[in-house]
Parts: sequence; C-alpha cells; structure tokens
Amino acid sequence: MTVAAKNIPITVFRTPSEMQAWSRDRRREGKTIGCVPTMGALHDGHLSLIRASAAGCDETIVTIFVNPTQFGPDEDLGKYPRDEASDLKLAVAAGATSAYCPAVEVMYPENSSVHVVEVNISTGLCGESRPFHFRGVTTVVSKLFNACLPDRAYFGMKDYQQLLVLRRMVRDLDFLLEIVGCPIVREPDGLAMSSRNKYLTDKARVDALCLRKGLDIAEQAFENGIRDPKVIGEMVRDSIKQVESAEIDYIECRDAEDLSEIETIENPAVVALAVTIGKTRLIDNTVLSPDKERKDV
Amino acid sequence: MTVAAKNIPITVFRTPSEMQAWSRDRRREGKTIGCVPTMGALHDGHLSLIRASAAGCDETIVTIFVNPTQFGPDEDLGKYPRDEASDLKLAVAAGATSAYCPAVEVMYPENSSVHVVEVNISTGLCGESRPFHFRGVTTVVSKLFNACLPDRAYFGMKDYQQLLVLRRMVRDLDFLLEIVGCPIVREPDGLAMSSRNKYLTDKARVDALCLRKGLDIAEQAFENGIRDPKVIGEMVRDSIKQVESAEIDYIECRDAEDLSEIETIENPAVVALAVTIGKTRLIDNTVLSPDKERKDV
Repeated sequence: MTVAAKNIPITVFRTPSEMQAWSRDRRREGKTIGCVPTMGALHDGHLSLIRASAAGCDETIVTIFVNPTQFGPDEDLGKYPRDEASDLKLAVAAGATSAYCPAVEVMYPENSSVHVVEVNISTGLCGESRPFHFRGVTTVVSKLFNACLPDRAYFGMKDYQQLLVLRRMVRDLDFLLEIVGCPIVREPDGLAMSSRNKYLTDKARVDALCLRKGLDIAEQAFENGIRDPKVIGEMVRDSIKQVESAEIDYIECRDAEDLSEIETIENPAVVALAVTIGKTRLIDNTVLSPDKERKDV
Repeated sequence: MTVAAKNIPITVFRTPSEMQAWSRDRRREGKTIGCVPTMGALHDGHLSLIRASAAGCDETIVTIFVNPTQFGPDEDLGKYPRDEASDLKLAVAAGATSAYCPAVEVMYPENSSVHVVEVNISTGLCGESRPFHFRGVTTVVSKLFNACLPDRAYFGMKDYQQLLVLRRMVRDLDFLLEIVGCPIVREPDGLAMSSRNKYLTDKARVDALCLRKGLDIAEQAFENGIRDPKVIGEMVRDSIKQVESAEIDYIECRDAEDLSEIETIENPAVVALAVTIGKTRLIDNTVLSPDKERKDV
C-alpha cells in the first residue's frame, strides 16, 4: 500500500509494484529518474547525492531500507539508527520527489533464495572482513533498481569498493542505467561523513581523525614521488598505529579501476582503509592519480 | 551495431543498448512486449512460445543465444546446433517482431564477474548433475530481461525446474514482468520436442520414447489412486530400465511449486526425469494434480 508519511510532502511507496508503477508513469512522460539508495540516517553525504540527482534528473527517488543481508551476524543491524520521518524531511529539502521505503518482509519473503554475486572486485578489502556484505549489497541494489527503474543511480565514493562492485554489476547484468559516483563529504575537521559516526564517543570522535590523517600522509608521500604501494601503505599504518584505540582492519593501495594488487603506481590507485575506533568500524579512501588529477570514478 | 539478417524481414539487435533503445521506444508508445529466450535451433516447442507471445503482446522479441555458461565442461556446447538465418525465418513466421542475437563477447566481456544465483529450487534434479547450469541460466536470463525489458517472458514447461527457478528469480529480484509457462509440445509419438533430439540416431529416437512411456505409467498409477511418490518413482524406473540404452540420471516426484521432497501427494506434484539415451541427455516431466486437473504453473 502507498502510505504518505505524516506531514511529509512526498509520496512514500512500500512495495516494488507501486514503486514501479510510479516510475513507469514518469518514464512514459519522458522524464528522467535518479535514484539514491540509502539505509536512512541521512547526513550531508547522502544529501549531496540527492542534490546531484535533483540537479541531473527530472525526478529523484530516495530509497530508505536498512538491509539486513549486508550486515554480518556480529554487526550493528539492531542498533543502526532509524528515523524515517526525519530522513524524509531532509530528503525532500534536498530535492527528492518520491521515496521507496519497503519493509523487510516485503523485500525478503520467508523462502527468498536468489542472490546477485560479484566474485572479483568484492573479494578483498571489506569483502574479506565482511564475507557476505557485498552479496547483500548487490542483491538489494538489483531489487531497488528493478523497483525504481532509474536512469541514473548515485553512490558516494566513501564506499569506494561498493561503487566499483555496483558499476561492474550494472555492466555485467546489462542494467539500463548509469552509476554516478559522488565525492566524499567530510566534516570540517576531515572525518568522512557516515551514519556510523553517531556511535562515536567524544574521545573516539577525536581519535577517528586518524583515518583522514593517514590518507593525508599517503597523498603527501605520493606527491613527493613515492610510487611503491607497500611503502605508502606502511606509512599510513605507522601513522594510524599511534592512536591507541585504533584497530586497523586493512590498509590497501590498489588499482583504482578494479582493486587488483599493483607493484607500482602507474595508473590511478586508491588508498583504502578500514579502522575500528573503540567499537565503531570506519572506512575512508583517497585516489592517487599519476597525472596529478583526482580521478572521478 | 544493428545488423538486419539477409532477406529476413525483422530487425536483429546485437547489443544490449540497441535492444533496450528499441524496447524503450515501444514501451513509450504504450506497447506491451513479450520475450521468448531461446538458444536457437528452433522447433515447434519454441514456436508455440512465440505464438503465445504474439497472441498476448503487441511486440515479440525472440532472443537467440547459445549461452556457454549454462553448459558444463563435458557437455555439448561445441556441437549445439546453430542456424541463425533459418531460426529467424521460423521466428518471424510464428509472430516475432524483433530479435536479439548478441555475440558471446558482447554478453561476457573478459573480466565478467557477476552471477545471479538461486540457491534452493535449483539445487536438486538437473542442478545436481549439472552444477553450474542454473547459475548460467539465471544470469543470462537476467541480462536478457534487462536488454529486452519485456512485460512477459515465455518459457516451456519441458524445462520445468528452469521455469520454477526463473519464477523465483523474478519474484526475489523484483523484475517487472510475468513469467508465462507454456505446455510441453510433443512429437506425434509422444517425445517431448527438444533441440537435442537432432542428436538421436534412428535407434536412439525409438528408445527415447521410454521417457514419455515412464510418465504415462506415473499418470496411470496416480489415476489408480497411488499417492506415494517413491512408489510412483520406482514404477517409472522399472519401466525405463527395460530399455538397455537408457541411462537414468534421475527420476523424482516432488512438490510442483518448489520441488521440495514430499511424503505423499496431497498437492500438485511433478514427476521429472532425466535420461541419457546413447550420448544424448533428455528431460521430460508431467504434473500430477490431486484435483485431477493438470496444474498450469
């Protein structure tokens, strides 16, 4: 059923068929549709995606769905922040014209048995510490694409590996849409915006700056002519290790197009890292481009 | 590039983007689109699907693609019959209005890395003897759906397990289309039509009738009140075993909705079998419905 949220000037769809009907009508009118998949808890990073979509498309669907299949059994599914009414207000203010907010039972009937799996780009980095995470992401995003039928879908570069995995999925399954990667939005002090930043205590919030500082060191080293990904990785590691509460999951310098391991930086490379501060796992990255220009993937 | 086959009054599309552009134009005109995925070597079974689509939809796309990823390493990919020009003539005569015939390199670029996987219905029966077969089917059909954007897709009930797997896929990935299952088309003597029947020698062609005879015995037993799937299965097995050249892969009597194992036939059940005659593996099935009516899945 279509349920309009109280006092929110936007139609909220709860089932794929209702969402599809709306999108098909818009397409028939010749309108272009942008889609911004989120798990809610919207921050300025999400809002920058919605703004990008609103600037580039006639209609913008924000999807809000805390997807259980991309959380591991020991992860934060239960405590993940949820506030649909507040999220919808923010989304509308940023330019969303419709919202898709399905319930878990709608998305995953009891005998659900189909997965979309990427088997190359998704295997290292976050895929190693979160074994079924990307399978959950590719599956749910396929479902969201089929429900929303967008011309373009907007994802943040903070989830760099996710962005590459989804680009590959769109190419390999012949999805009729363009994935648009948008720059990381940061707090004034450099911390990459994340819904999980809400978990940080005051001290952890300060300690969390070590991620961005590590990436600064990588960028500086690269600017100074260092091209050995291992050397750069070690410099970042040494820097982050100085923060006692920081537990490094991974720090990797890989090819920026497909995350393959590299011997030396001849083509754009990404320095990607995951660090747990206290109990909160944070990720961040930066792209190093030999032509001195940041590559917009 | 769009390449019109010589002397064939139909446009043949070779890439997903060209196929999509055509389908989007038709959709914008308000036309409904039927899709009939095939591996070519069209026989009356395929043509019945094309006719069903032509009767129910404004436009009918036949797809012809011998999909390598659904063949096992020791299977018949190399010798699978191919004759595009002749197939297109037959398809047009049956009512196809457009064709999608991509090359293997177009469908699977060298670093392809995304699969669509069904993990329940696809595991027994043919899934057991052909381990990656259904993964190949669900992946390629997802791609065909995204290229053709059909309202309905037509599949034969001869590939009964495939039909159920694809129905589940459409449901679980929220594809915006209806899967239509069409009755098995048989030769006058009862052999189910299959492109692989071409492989049969004269003697094997006669021996191959044991599949349909086995199913007749199952239907007769069911009509006589037998409700134990094991007993029915054994009766079919005893019958087929009398043909010396017949090597039974499986004979199963399962729930007709999800292929789960059953103790007794209370709801519609399918008797499905795979038998190799000489070197040719053939499949066939029949649905037993306690309400005496064949169930149209």
